[in-house]
Amino acid sequence: MGILNSISTPADLKALDEEDLDVLAKEVRSFLVDKVAATGGHLGPNLGVVELTIGLHRVFDSPQDPIIFDTSHQSYVHKILTGRADDFDTLRQKGGLSGYTCRAESEHDWTESSHASAALSYADGLAKAMQLNGDSDRSVVAVVGDGALTGGMCWEALNNIAAAKDRKVVVVVNDNGRSYSPTIGGFAENLAELRMQHFYDRVMEKGKSSLKSMGWVGERTFEALHAFKEGVKSTVIPTEMFPELGMKYIGPVDGHNQKAVDNALKYAQEYDGPIIVHMVTEKGRGYAPAEQDLDELMHSTGVIDPVTGAPKSASKPGWTSVFSDELVKIGAQNDDIVAITAAMAGPTGLSKFEANFPSRFFDVGIAEQHAVTSAAGLALGGKHPVVAIYSTFLNRAFDQLLMDVGMLKLPVTLVLDRSGITGSDGASHNGVWDMALTSIVPGIQVAAPRDEESLRELLNEAVAINDGPTVLRFPKGDLPAPIDAIDTLEDGVDVLAYEDCDDADAPSVLIIAVGERATVALEIASRISTQGINVTVVDPRWIVPIPQSLVALADDHDLVITIEDGVIHGGVGSLLSDALNAAEVDTPRRQIAVPQKYLDHGSRNEVLEECGMDADSIEATITGWLDRLFGED
Amino acid sequence: MGILNSISTPADLKALDEEDLDVLAKEVRSFLVDKVAATGGHLGPNLGVVELTIGLHRVFDSPQDPIIFDTSHQSYVHKILTGRADDFDTLRQKGGLSGYTCRAESEHDWTESSHASAALSYADGLAKAMQLNGDSDRSVVAVVGDGALTGGMCWEALNNIAAAKDRKVVVVVNDNGRSYSPTIGGFAENLAELRMQHFYDRVMEKGKSSLKSMGWVGERTFEALHAFKEGVKSTVIPTEMFPELGMKYIGPVDGHNQKAVDNALKYAQEYDGPIIVHMVTEKGRGYAPAEQDLDELMHSTGVIDPVTGAPKSASKPGWTSVFSDELVKIGAQNDDIVAITAAMAGPTGLSKFEANFPSRFFDVGIAEQHAVTSAAGLALGGKHPVVAIYSTFLNRAFDQLLMDVGMLKLPVTLVLDRSGITGSDGASHNGVWDMALTSIVPGIQVAAPRDEESLRELLNEAVAINDGPTVLRFPKGDLPAPIDAIDTLEDGVDVLAYEDCDDADAPSVLIIAVGERATVALEIASRISTQGINVTVVDPRWIVPIPQSLVALADDHDLVITIEDGVIHGGVGSLLSDALNAAEVDTPRRQIAVPQKYLDHGSRNEVLEECGMDADSIEATITGWLDRLFGED
Repeated sequence: MGILNSISTPADLKALDEEDLDVLAKEVRSFLVDKVAATGGHLGPNLGVVELTIGLHRVFDSPQDPIIFDTSHQSYVHKILTGRADDFDTLRQKGGLSGYTCRAESEHDWTESSHASAALSYADGLAKAMQLNGDSDRSVVAVVGDGALTGGMCWEALNNIAAAKDRKVVVVVNDNGRSYSPTIGGFAENLAELRMQHFYDRVMEKGKSSLKSMGWVGERTFEALHAFKEGVKSTVIPTEMFPELGMKYIGPVDGHNQKAVDNALKYAQEYDGPIIVHMVTEKGRGYAPAEQDLDELMHSTGVIDPVTGAPKSASKPGWTSVFSDELVKIGAQNDDIVAITAAMAGPTGLSKFEANFPSRFFDVGIAEQHAVTSAAGLALGGKHPVVAIYSTFLNRAFDQLLMDVGMLKLPVTLVLDRSGITGSDGASHNGVWDMALTSIVPGIQVAAPRDEESLRELLNEAVAINDGPTVLRFPKGDLPAPIDAIDTLEDGVDVLAYEDCDDADAPSVLIIAVGERATVALEIASRISTQGINVTVVDPRWIVPIPQSLVALADDHDLVITIEDGVIHGGVGSLLSDALNAAEVDTPRRQIAVPQKYLDHGSRNEVLEECGMDADSIEATITGWLDRLFGED
Repeated sequence: MGILNSISTPADLKALDEEDLDVLAKEVRSFLVDKVAATGGHLGPNLGVVELTIGLHRVFDSPQDPIIFDTSHQSYVHKILTGRADDFDTLRQKGGLSGYTCRAESEHDWTESSHASAALSYADGLAKAMQLNGDSDRSVVAVVGDGALTGGMCWEALNNIAAAKDRKVVVVVNDNGRSYSPTIGGFAENLAELRMQHFYDRVMEKGKSSLKSMGWVGERTFEALHAFKEGVKSTVIPTEMFPELGMKYIGPVDGHNQKAVDNALKYAQEYDGPIIVHMVTEKGRGYAPAEQDLDELMHSTGVIDPVTGAPKSASKPGWTSVFSDELVKIGAQNDDIVAITAAMAGPTGLSKFEANFPSRFFDVGIAEQHAVTSAAGLALGGKHPVVAIYSTFLNRAFDQLLMDVGMLKLPVTLVLDRSGITGSDGASHNGVWDMALTSIVPGIQVAAPRDEESLRELLNEAVAINDGPTVLRFPKGDLPAPIDAIDTLEDGVDVLAYEDCDDADAPSVLIIAVGERATVALEIASRISTQGINVTVVDPRWIVPIPQSLVALADDHDLVITIEDGVIHGGVGSLLSDALNAAEVDTPRRQIAVPQKYLDHGSRNEVLEECGMDADSIEATITGWLDRLFGED
């Protein structure tokens, strides 16, 4: 690690001799494999951008020239080259290095969200500000994947970037031919064609004589081709990216040839306007388990063996696999079930459905808006689409859910994986907004399973509802132990426990537990019943709209407590208050929910504790409430 | 109207002789001007699509071949040709014809939302369903404007449509060179180039001899050009739309030449895969006031004089003009203020800012996502952007607000015009979701002015806040009479009235009025104080986060009533409940808000009444609450 150790700022990198760069790239890859194997993280994407990131920091002047990484899960090399190599042992751990760019870590980091396709919009805005500030000589660089380019935000941004011929925005397309899975759509086909044009590069390497020997180019043609090569392929390529935007394009460039990378970026840096640089890279480059990673296990890993890439601990079947399995069963019984993913067939568990029913499976690209509205179209055509998506990414399709699905009362089922607190991926990956968001939609029905069995049941119930949208939300992580209901009310609400303190006149508390929070709710109930309180614990199963039986139950108790793993505003506690107000039931209510703030990364349990949502914290909070409401003094 | 009167289904239209079509088009235009002048509505867009819509219904077999109109404000001709001409006197009126497509009106209408850029996604979904159903011979047609193509959803959809070579999706681009205002961006420049290629058409008209006489094409070239003409310009056009998607393209076609329109659509109907048909049309065609309408007054009109196009009643300066005016004042004092619109500079009042500070004004196209995230970029560059947008369209940019602005605590001010109930534009134009939506965002501050003076004040306060996003929401319509505060609390909450019933022991009610609801709240307070109740009316001004003084006030009263013009779930009443629960204040609460349903069109007052939100309904509701809470029996 001799060269890597000498780099703590981009200036150190610029001072290196060119011949040292290949060694540096090797050292960076070795460092990445060692460190990420120990902590888990986005290994594949970072192995693919080593030369690209070295080139960026040699050619541009960060942070004067802002470099914005789209999603920023590919920013590890950038972190290494900007003085954060020593922190990699703490990657994605509480108090440690973020898995994304993070402004608190470095002046070289400009943004923080992990949601795809936003970088070009940031870049457009920054370039506009710089122009107004009179800093027109500074460049703004945005690094975006070919997958993210299928997201509509990129199109919106490129349309604006292209229109301003006098702002220096450099759009670096990191084209590895896959996002999580192979990039899909007409655009991907075109990219594949472009990649084929590496042929041109290879032809050029052989020089004039070999060209002539092929008999199809004359002297003059060679001169033209040569000029074109010298200009790092400035134009003239038969098929290129976004020609209808009239934007300068150079590429495709071999993203693992440091000299080619640097030349292309230099050209872009000197060019006096917006430009696209098309880099062809290989995800997982230089690490065999990641290069051959057809199942995308190396996109984001847990702790692995650095040599074999094998996971250190066998993962138990979790919520995702139960969903995956049950949807295949449902699909076998009902031909009208179709499944949609936004470029995440593997992570959402839909790949099993795809394997069984290929014609009824649709990967739309990193395009949540289209996922939801094309589902509406499928529903108009008589199908029942199941859109499987991470909870946090549903944010991108709120309007589509409200306007295109909900208003037409179409039977579309959204399955929200990674709902609630997810932990190590940090603020923008938490799925804590879905309840507040989906419950805005008139007529929607939202369910939260508490265990494997209820997940299977609720999925079956959801796809049987044909008069409007349904939502199923479940968290990341292992399945909890099964929880049987001791009673089920007429509207489907499960009673999980009556914890009595043997005093019928003691204050009575109703605990409403949302989804997997049932486990902690039962624990709490058994603890507080020893404090002279009678406790009822229920799991509504369907949380939107609020089941009427909850209103009646609330009326029969002296206090209602909701426990949920979503933000407090607009969550189940809020909805319950609305329902009780409407019913003129004035029982006091208290809410255990995620506070209104962005949550730092850490393990799921650490973040829960930070939010006061672990069992001990909840018990302490509730005990305080009980004392003040029912205490004797 | 001889021919128009004979048309009540597309079959009638198909039976017409070709020579009658030009007369029909004239009749339709005359009908449109007469009817829309009397009711108000989207005049300009419909005048532009007369021949196009006639062609669609002659060539395709609706509803077997679904025709989906993007936004659908250009669906009037479609309505006329599908049996609804007689209903045009009721256009946009309560119980009457919707201003958009509406499934309850006709089997020829497939969708209902007025939000742009969604049609292609619907079409993709429908085509997928038809293929699965074995109906692969049916076509799905989507009509989309050039402006809407700047929206990211279209890009996402086209990427999917293009990838399926065996599904018959016909994308008709209605290119009039403007959305509300001239379409902007690199894409628009390219479209302009394409439009220039009408030249090719004109050249072809003149035939072989004239071509030869120009001396630049030989026999063989003519043959090639001719073949290309015969194929209705199937390929070979030097610049075309979305070539990187590899999608078949024909055009540009003169959208007012019925024969050219029909031929192009027939070609598309027969083509066995996805295809783009590029129609060049003129917004407002055939009606002088609309053709010369640089200010876009004819895009959507009120009641006008059918001859001159002049409004029948002079419109008073409303909320929008106060904002427009005040922002210019602020902009003159502060160079860092920049303004952003998503293709609606006129309707949002930003055109005045644009005229004064052209370099600090940005129209990003119909691209709300980019509007918000490019604002984030501008803020990162030291600016304070003001994004002016209709409340309902903010739905499209929730993720951007949450992730790209809120998480970085950037000083971006969103100004939401047309918040609350808007009325005649129907369900999808109501701005009733913004409070539920924005309040999810941690750290955001949301204000609602009650009159002109508070709008000016709050706008100044909002742009002075530099540690996170701010939102200002105000409704459509006339400004209410000014309302002075009788007291202002420490945290800025205005006390508007103490209505006492002269009995200090009588029950006390706190009314919290949001924004323009202050007017009705004062009316209600004076009415119910005669019922033996002491009433306090406050206007929080800043409604998110809930001001702490409201919690203290609630604790001092026997009942708290919130009155707001947004949906009940997640609105100010919900937020107040959350705040009171957190503070362990258990005063009963009641909410007057928009119910959780999609609202039919009608005048704003009619819709308010329908929601029980007019003064009489609110009084009756509150009286019932008071009786049951404080009644003697």
